[in-house]
Amino acid sequence: MSFMRKALYPGTFDPITFGHLDVVKRALRLFDEVVLAVAQNDSKTPWFTPQERLELIRENVKDLPNVSVRLLEGLTVEFAKNIGACALIRGLRAVSDFDFEFQMAQMNRHLNDEIETIFLMPSQKYFYTSSTLVKQVCSAKNAEHIAPFIPPNVIEAMRLKRRMDPQ
Amino acid sequence: MSFMRKALYPGTFDPITFGHLDVVKRALRLFDEVVLAVAQNDSKTPWFTPQERLELIRENVKDLPNVSVRLLEGLTVEFAKNIGACALIRGLRAVSDFDFEFQMAQMNRHLNDEIETIFLMPSQKYFYTSSTLVKQVCSAKNAEHIAPFIPPNVIEAMRLKRRMDPQ
Amino acid sequence: MSFMRKALYPGTFDPITFGHLDVVKRALRLFDEVVLAVAQNDSKTPWFTPQERLELIRENVKDLPNVSVRLLEGLTVEFAKNIGACALIRGLRAVSDFDFEFQMAQMNRHLNDEIETIFLMPSQKYFYTSSTLVKQVCSAKNAEHIAPFIPPNVIEAMRLKRRMDPQ
Amino acid sequence: MSFMRKALYPGTFDPITFGHLDVVKRALRLFDEVVLAVAQNDSKTPWFTPQERLELIRENVKDLPNVSVRLLEGLTVEFAKNIGACALIRGLRAVSDFDFEFQMAQMNRHLNDEIETIFLMPSQKYFYTSSTLVKQVCSAKNAEHIAPFIPPNVIEAMRLKRRMDPQ
Amino acid sequence: MSFMRKALYPGTFDPITFGHLDVVKRALRLFDEVVLAVAQNDSKTPWFTPQERLELIRENVKDLPNVSVRLLEGLTVEFAKNIGACALIRGLRAVSDFDFEFQMAQMNRHLNDEIETIFLMPSQKYFYTSSTLVKQVCSAKNAEHIAPFIPPNVIEAMRLKRRMDPQ
Amino acid sequence: MSFMRKALYPGTFDPITFGHLDVVKRALRLFDEVVLAVAQNDSKTPWFTPQERLELIRENVKDLPNVSVRLLEGLTVEFAKNIGACALIRGLRAVSDFDFEFQMAQMNRHLNDEIETIFLMPSQKYFYTSSTLVKQVCSAKNAEHIAPFIPPNVIEAMRLKRRMDPQ
Repeated sequence: MSFMRKALYPGTFDPITFGHLDVVKRALRLFDEVVLAVAQNDSKTPWFTPQERLELIRENVKDLPNVSVRLLEGLTVEFAKNIGACALIRGLRAVSDFDFEFQMAQMNRHLNDEIETIFLMPSQKYFYTSSTLVKQVCSAKNAEHIAPFIPPNVIEAMRLKRRMDPQ
Repeated sequence: MSFMRKALYPGTFDPITFGHLDVVKRALRLFDEVVLAVAQNDSKTPWFTPQERLELIRENVKDLPNVSVRLLEGLTVEFAKNIGACALIRGLRAVSDFDFEFQMAQMNRHLNDEIETIFLMPSQKYFYTSSTLVKQVCSAKNAEHIAPFIPPNVIEAMRLKRRMDPQ
Repeated sequence: MSFMRKALYPGTFDPITFGHLDVVKRALRLFDEVVLAVAQNDSKTPWFTPQERLELIRENVKDLPNVSVRLLEGLTVEFAKNIGACALIRGLRAVSDFDFEFQMAQMNRHLNDEIETIFLMPSQKYFYTSSTLVKQVCSAKNAEHIAPFIPPNVIEAMRLKRRMDPQ
Repeated sequence: MSFMRKALYPGTFDPITFGHLDVVKRALRLFDEVVLAVAQNDSKTPWFTPQERLELIRENVKDLPNVSVRLLEGLTVEFAKNIGACALIRGLRAVSDFDFEFQMAQMNRHLNDEIETIFLMPSQKYFYTSSTLVKQVCSAKNAEHIAPFIPPNVIEAMRLKRRMDPQ
Repeated sequence: MSFMRKALYPGTFDPITFGHLDVVKRALRLFDEVVLAVAQNDSKTPWFTPQERLELIRENVKDLPNVSVRLLEGLTVEFAKNIGACALIRGLRAVSDFDFEFQMAQMNRHLNDEIETIFLMPSQKYFYTSSTLVKQVCSAKNAEHIAPFIPPNVIEAMRLKRRMDPQ
Repeated sequence: MSFMRKALYPGTFDPITFGHLDVVKRALRLFDEVVLAVAQNDSKTPWFTPQERLELIRENVKDLPNVSVRLLEGLTVEFAKNIGACALIRGLRAVSDFDFEFQMAQMNRHLNDEIETIFLMPSQKYFYTSSTLVKQVCSAKNAEHIAPFIPPNVIEAMRLKRRMDPQ
């Protein structure tokens, strides 16, 4: 018998990709419960509101047992502590992620040394599906190009957004 | 109630440092059991034999519950599977570790996709205590310089080795 | 006898630098025809409009046989296919370019595996003349500082722009 | 007997951190005089005006002999030359700083080869206190979290700013 | 009508991998002829002699039109010039390859500015099949693990080598 | 009036290159005296003995006032302290140097926090003249290729060495 272990997976998820979902599934092998937390204080211009992002994620994880989605409030490590998580999960795809992730992980360790940051590697086929790149490639009229990287409900939401909110 | 989770921490450990031990302690927060496995097929000229390294580690983890030390035999992922581990642990200190670690992790995932590689960050004060750097700095007559980074039994073993095996 | 090979060199070119022109000349050794394509959907605040950038480039390549300039429309790989190009050219100056360029190249390969991305290295003397750095250093009153890196018509255009469009 | 050596330490300093101050103290071992220069043409949205930043720095260096603070005017290398500095000081914390810093240093060397850029390494405990990260973590209600990284007067100024200028 | 273009692909190829062969096929889209050249002066302890490596490659490219294999003699750029090649081909897999490849490419440009180095990206599935990693994983008894990365004749040669030349 | 400042420039210098000499000249703008120290405990197979390297350097700096050459004995920071140096000088050419140099600098700071490591950037034209690359390219019969990077006495010494000590 062992004790329960919960992990927090914080991120912007603007939008959620198959790469993120792959990380969630890998984390489920290591933890009894995984909570995705949608960061709200994103400085860059978002595609989706935090609430929209939360719902897009929720539809994609509804069949995964022991996975839930929350809006991230306050400091990440405090949020983790409040929900009883012992670890923060971060996906590492490329060396360019490394420095910032490391500085953030060290800052978080400073703020609360009880919460451990662990880095997971998404499946190789999702290495180039950063949300940023997906947005660069994507537009309403060629959303089919990104279908291998983005869940269908996100593609549909992007189509609607474009229709309602032309740029 | 939850199921037991065991992690394998493979490495050369030539010699074990406080940085390695810090990673072990962090891993113990996430796993029910941690097994250190000493790689034997090291191509570079080792300071200690695999058996010596195993014993130097063992003395340092003897008070940590749920930690054991083994000689690594065969492929790492097969060894992990045989001992019932669900994860490989690797410490990441610097961006220069990144590429090789990622290629190795991907190769291991190819060999067995059930075993997840997770990357942990050692305590900042051990970032510069790679075994390689320690060996460069160290010599029998100034072993005291590395006392903050290396367990006492390793320093003593290095002294003995130098005396018996002068170079 | 051999078949014709055309390459597409896409970029923001805001503004064109001698580093870009050096890459064009190197590409002409390898391809029968090189087409520069000015990306229009740049998210950052541009100095010049796409049409202005196109004209600034055109003046600088008008004596290079087999070089032309176009506005980039739609997806880069589709544009490449439509003009009959077999390769995308990218200049690599620094390791910080690497990850993004690689992710972009992999995304483009996913979108069309017939179009190969090749990376060329500009002349060493242009390694530090990124358009971004040039803009940081440059201002109307000290445009002479960047004369070694930027074609004369661009410097003149920058002067005019500043006069008409003070900031 | 030796000649006087003055160094210029240019930066945005938005806000000044203990990491910056650590670099200043290290530079004082090497130079007879250190001048901090606050860059004014920062493209990103600043927290503090250049004048505010200058004053926040000044309070923190008032007890350091041979240290002064200035607003940076014009090109950095020209400013350095005008004040009689022989060196530019830059702190390097992480490999991700490297490429940009190197390109900038090469550009500055091109503009004036008499002024040497030297890179110093801040104390390890300040490696993760980039101004950017500090701003991400910080908010008026949890300014105490960043107390180990930021001087008290900056924390107070941030509190006042938040109160007066809610966002 | 266009002129013939030949490219030289130099390397140690100890042993040839599917990643190398992938680069060859991609290069054939861009050049009329590709010559692989086996470097002989490898400082590290090789698995195969240059002649053995050449033959292992030859069997794998015998069905590719316009591809040939040679032993590399003298300076790479001189060899390229002697066989009439206008380009050197290098595969870039990871950021850790970058610096050395760039320094080598610059040295080669210094030695002969007529020969252009171009960097190609192997297929993503071969990113982690560096010859070095393959050798680490491989041993006679588990050669089947590396079958997806290494041609069959290389695996067979590795088996024979192990039998004849036990280590 | 100011106090004297001495800097130690430690290295393998196997052999000295124009890149190293460029760093020495730049350091002389910042320090009153520069001491090159030849590391003796090099693990790799050296081309020249420490004494030979010292003499090859000495001939090249004999006209530089305030520059001397020594064999490095014991720990670098202790040697620095013994000769009264306040700084260690390191040349940084590429991002791949960065991590190791930083770890070494941190280790040295741990061993003696009074001695500051400063990083200088050699002239861009020497970026690709690492001793390692020079050795790869060089052979007795084509020493002229490396003439722009290596002092004449080193080339002559390499010729003699090859004649006497064929490999």
